[in-house]
Amino acid sequence: MHTQDLETPAVVVDLDVFERDLHKLQTYLDKHKIANRPHIKTHKSTAIAHLQLEAGAAGITCQKLGEAEVMADAGITSIFIPYNLVGEAKLQRLAALMGRADISVSADSLETITGLISAARRAGKALTVLVEFDSGMGRCGVQTPHEAAVLARAIAASDHLCFGGLMTYPNRDALNGFVRTTRELLAPDKIDIPSVSGGGTSCMWQAHSHPELTEHRAGMYIFGDYGTLQSGAMTLDEISLRVHATVVSRPTETRGIVDAGSKTLSSDKLGRDGHGFVVEYPEARIFGLSEEHGHIDFSACAAKPRIGERVTIVPNHVCPVVNLFDTLIQTRNGQVVGSWRVDARGKVR
Amino acid sequence: MHTQDLETPAVVVDLDVFERDLHKLQTYLDKHKIANRPHIKTHKSTAIAHLQLEAGAAGITCQKLGEAEVMADAGITSIFIPYNLVGEAKLQRLAALMGRADISVSADSLETITGLISAARRAGKALTVLVEFDSGMGRCGVQTPHEAAVLARAIAASDHLCFGGLMTYPNRDALNGFVRTTRELLAPDKIDIPSVSGGGTSCMWQAHSHPELTEHRAGMYIFGDYGTLQSGAMTLDEISLRVHATVVSRPTETRGIVDAGSKTLSSDKLGRDGHGFVVEYPEARIFGLSEEHGHIDFSACAAKPRIGERVTIVPNHVCPVVNLFDTLIQTRNGQVVGSWRVDARGKVR
Repeated sequence: MHTQDLETPAVVVDLDVFERDLHKLQTYLDKHKIANRPHIKTHKSTAIAHLQLEAGAAGITCQKLGEAEVMADAGITSIFIPYNLVGEAKLQRLAALMGRADISVSADSLETITGLISAARRAGKALTVLVEFDSGMGRCGVQTPHEAAVLARAIAASDHLCFGGLMTYPNRDALNGFVRTTRELLAPDKIDIPSVSGGGTSCMWQAHSHPELTEHRAGMYIFGDYGTLQSGAMTLDEISLRVHATVVSRPTETRGIVDAGSKTLSSDKLGRDGHGFVVEYPEARIFGLSEEHGHIDFSACAAKPRIGERVTIVPNHVCPVVNLFDTLIQTRNGQVVGSWRVDARGKVR
Repeated sequence: MHTQDLETPAVVVDLDVFERDLHKLQTYLDKHKIANRPHIKTHKSTAIAHLQLEAGAAGITCQKLGEAEVMADAGITSIFIPYNLVGEAKLQRLAALMGRADISVSADSLETITGLISAARRAGKALTVLVEFDSGMGRCGVQTPHEAAVLARAIAASDHLCFGGLMTYPNRDALNGFVRTTRELLAPDKIDIPSVSGGGTSCMWQAHSHPELTEHRAGMYIFGDYGTLQSGAMTLDEISLRVHATVVSRPTETRGIVDAGSKTLSSDKLGRDGHGFVVEYPEARIFGLSEEHGHIDFSACAAKPRIGERVTIVPNHVCPVVNLFDTLIQTRNGQVVGSWRVDARGKVR
């Protein structure tokens, strides 16, 4: 089947482009001796995770326990969950998961660490814990090397935990200084920092500029999106994933409505103007989204689409788009050649 | 199980509140002799659709064909799809669906109507088509009564279609004048306007102020959300659905991070400041969302939450939240009493 015959809206991945993306980051990180631990939150597909591992990834990253359970069910054994796992039910599940995969997690508080100790005790094996620090994003993470050192000592002091190092997201300039100061604070205790895990797709090609970084977690590098394009990390030719949509209404001379709305493209704007990039009409602007309608202003376009015409859209942020679909369509040279199941879609717990 | 023991994030519906909401709108519309045709895009659950029909709804509304197929599979027979169904694959599916349910659709162009004729011919039965008009939203819909009359004549002229009237979304002041002028234009052709279908939850209690309205399509009235609250259409006590989340990090004195991010709350802001309302901390502000983290500023709150504490959030827009989950949890008096499957989740085609 030709992609033009696919029902819309559909999320379509060009395999040739995808495979180039997959190997390009792996090659770059290999060259700089930085471990590649791709974040599966972007694709949520066990099949793609296996491709990443076959290409040379050291393991995978999952944002939620539920994602990690799906990946472990598919036989993936090295999983980092950079998230504070909190609460009795989560700790029970963590203990169970430790029985069938090599799990590491992060923590940014003594409260989280206390819970992790109980999970590891229950699992009967040591749990590797990295301390999350805030390198400037202002989300989770300890704020100072002093706090990081306090948590590192608490982890190292537990028979049930193993101190895995430091983690942050995304890589920022403050990373190196933070790690060095923490190392100095831990030296008297003879506590090493075995790894420093950073992340991000927009900043992936600068990973080697952080001498302290030992591992990188990127998610979107295999697909790309409008954010990645605008950051300069990927070119339009490198964006493997596009949303195919159909123009279903042309109510005015300049307005067009497509069958992809916020339940397809998501409402993630990531600070961008508009809701994505229309490849065939680069001057068009997706000025609004209803749940099942994309509202496009074609006034700047010399030619305007007719009703029934197909367009392909590069979404602002690819991760929430994939999470809205059960299936990603694979294509080569414009022909549909298969699909991937989004196995871990919706696994927010 | 008490709701406090539910794993988070979870979407939780208080059945007592839900049932009051369900009947309140039905009673109001009955009183004003306006047909109630609830929009299932909000809940995407066949079980809830059946409850709406049992409460007195005249039928249901689906935004996409895929939703309608799921509802028809569950034995629901009166379904309005207020959407331009375009393209060969959609028309084939429409013809098949017409074989097992009483389907009506909308159109705002001759291109759409031409396709609908072919679908109805294939189905071997007449398809009811309403003409969509733009009463001020600026999405789909013809712009003038003259255009509406042209399409109404085209529908009425086809042996395969039945002119069902006019539809718009949401109800706005322009509605009545538009309908009257169109009626005058159609009078010489002896074409009646059998129904006028409007919609919206924020404007639901003003439905009776539009004398031309014969049918109302509301979606969110059974759950409510922060948008509905701020519009004045519902009070906090009437909001039956909340997202339960856990505080997983308190990196600074004023910042708290919860385990509900954009893959739970969606990024729909609908023009609002922040990403929802934290019931237990009304002065808190959800200032940002990552995919699995909600970033909350508690600086205006006298007391601040501890790590592990539960909070409940009224999301900005409930429809995309439900569409991210497979299950809605039912509670009564704080106890979990069951769940609803979100059967039509992700049915964007």
